[in-house]
Amino acid sequence: MKIAVDGMGGDHAPIEIVKGCIQAINDTDLEVYLVGKQELIEGELKKYKFDDSKLHIINATEVIENEDKPVDAIKRKKDSSMVVGLSMLKNKEVDAFISAGNTGALLAGSLLKVGRIKKIDRPAIATVYPTDKGMSLLVDAGANAECKPRNLLEFALMGSIYSQKVLGKENPSVGLVNIGEEEGKGTPMIKDAYQLLSKNELNFYGNVEGRDIPTGVVDILVCDGFVGNIILKVTEGVAMTMMGMLKREFKKSFLSKLGAMMLIPSLKSFKKNLDYAEYGGAPLLGVKGAVIKAHGSSNAKAIKNAILQAKVFAQKDVIQIISEEILKIGDEDHAG
Amino acid sequence: MKIAVDGMGGDHAPIEIVKGCIQAINDTDLEVYLVGKQELIEGELKKYKFDDSKLHIINATEVIENEDKPVDAIKRKKDSSMVVGLSMLKNKEVDAFISAGNTGALLAGSLLKVGRIKKIDRPAIATVYPTDKGMSLLVDAGANAECKPRNLLEFALMGSIYSQKVLGKENPSVGLVNIGEEEGKGTPMIKDAYQLLSKNELNFYGNVEGRDIPTGVVDILVCDGFVGNIILKVTEGVAMTMMGMLKREFKKSFLSKLGAMMLIPSLKSFKKNLDYAEYGGAPLLGVKGAVIKAHGSSNAKAIKNAILQAKVFAQKDVIQIISEEILKIGDEDHAG
Repeated sequence: MKIAVDGMGGDHAPIEIVKGCIQAINDTDLEVYLVGKQELIEGELKKYKFDDSKLHIINATEVIENEDKPVDAIKRKKDSSMVVGLSMLKNKEVDAFISAGNTGALLAGSLLKVGRIKKIDRPAIATVYPTDKGMSLLVDAGANAECKPRNLLEFALMGSIYSQKVLGKENPSVGLVNIGEEEGKGTPMIKDAYQLLSKNELNFYGNVEGRDIPTGVVDILVCDGFVGNIILKVTEGVAMTMMGMLKREFKKSFLSKLGAMMLIPSLKSFKKNLDYAEYGGAPLLGVKGAVIKAHGSSNAKAIKNAILQAKVFAQKDVIQIISEEILKIGDEDHAG
Repeated sequence: MKIAVDGMGGDHAPIEIVKGCIQAINDTDLEVYLVGKQELIEGELKKYKFDDSKLHIINATEVIENEDKPVDAIKRKKDSSMVVGLSMLKNKEVDAFISAGNTGALLAGSLLKVGRIKKIDRPAIATVYPTDKGMSLLVDAGANAECKPRNLLEFALMGSIYSQKVLGKENPSVGLVNIGEEEGKGTPMIKDAYQLLSKNELNFYGNVEGRDIPTGVVDILVCDGFVGNIILKVTEGVAMTMMGMLKREFKKSFLSKLGAMMLIPSLKSFKKNLDYAEYGGAPLLGVKGAVIKAHGSSNAKAIKNAILQAKVFAQKDVIQIISEEILKIGDEDHAG
């Protein structure tokens, strides 16, 4: 299996990206295509020993920066690592593409270069959300700020298939993020989405309130991209603020310093639970090819895990299954 | 100054409500009107010593339950503690009303019995959000699931006045909750709200992302009630889940148990920061009277703090100032 990786995307490119690719090919039988500035990548590769029949450099002279406007950048920077990688995916030269670069550009590029699955109105970003019980999948994590009920139904369907095939969950449950547990809560859009989710063939749990999200009450959390972004970032903010407050408290006295030292192993194991690098990246569901967005601050471990995840994503025919299952949903629910 | 308190609302009514009222009158010169089932309240009062010229029981034979439908309950249960208390506020027999009961009913009752401030389209619930720097005020915390840009402008204005007069912040800053920091992010509604907030006389900070909310980057967080509810409940959920995970980690070994014991004072001080009871209750801003929603699980301390807060709310003419300031906002921005 062949995976293309954007060598220039992310805060730690190309150093950590290259390192992650090396780890992945050394541990598996995958072939990796590293796309980016050839000289830079070659310079990094000199640091490592590896089977060079499993790693190929595809030269791309331009880089899409985080500040670039998505659609504009995709159209203008034709020889960027992102556009070149997406074109390889479209032409079936590779089975999947991973980038830690500009999220908006990756989304726009996936739509423009690779295309949507038929009958999917709006592709979504699906992110793993670490919970007390393991992990949930949150769809949409930010691709669509405004949604119609039909979009949320599509997110639920795509999330269920991905969760089953890639995350290995049997009959995964779907929850609708809402401001109350009872049916009939929320905005008109959310109420309509509740009805759509109820009447289709999903393992629909019902509404999920904010306070139950971190406990891991459902396998798939469905919401629009505005709410999804808020959930992810508030979670990150609260976790970081709490850790900071605890650290300050722990430094206040000799006894608390001593106590905190004894807790270092516990705190490390706790932190690991919240570490995005453990979970790989976020698939763009609804695109006609396996595209994974890795976290902007991905280290080598995160890139390696994203590559392993991309392998399963491509191997399990997730896109083919989505294409078939979406046809079973009534067209009367179609948004546009 | 006279404060009416719903003796029957909340998970720990009437026990904790009565206890909180006693603490308030013993510490201040306030007069409290406890509204509810006379016999029950009298039974509780027997436990305490207090100046009975400062505490009056107003008998009300009915109770609005959490399961009751708001508007229906207000119309049907005319002799409920909530309706009786709100009527006293309307008739200026008291200066403020506090309830820990059904939030929707309190909101509906406030609108039906006490009324809106002229030119305020939609009253909002303003909640104190504990941050790393102290506290922010979040408006709307859940009264209006769907909003127009003009509503968010009203929330910003009312929040600024409340924050200044009651929380004692000078020139408080206003942030718009959004999915990116740059102008031009978010839904069309949010983009329009950004423009409205920019051009009016507010200390407008700009957009605030989810991860910056817990750091206390602004004094007032403005958002619709759907997003506000999600922010509050995700924060609560993450904090509780993290505490639970830490506790489990701490119990894993003898050394970590010992370490955790040494940290008990630090953990207590940390928990105090997150304790809603420290902050009183949530004012319903935009209502033509000082109404405060206390947390459903309020203990005596929370009720006492809500009473002290109600005193400042009424004393500082917050409602009069809102009534005047709202007239200075251009009518062209009017939503309704």
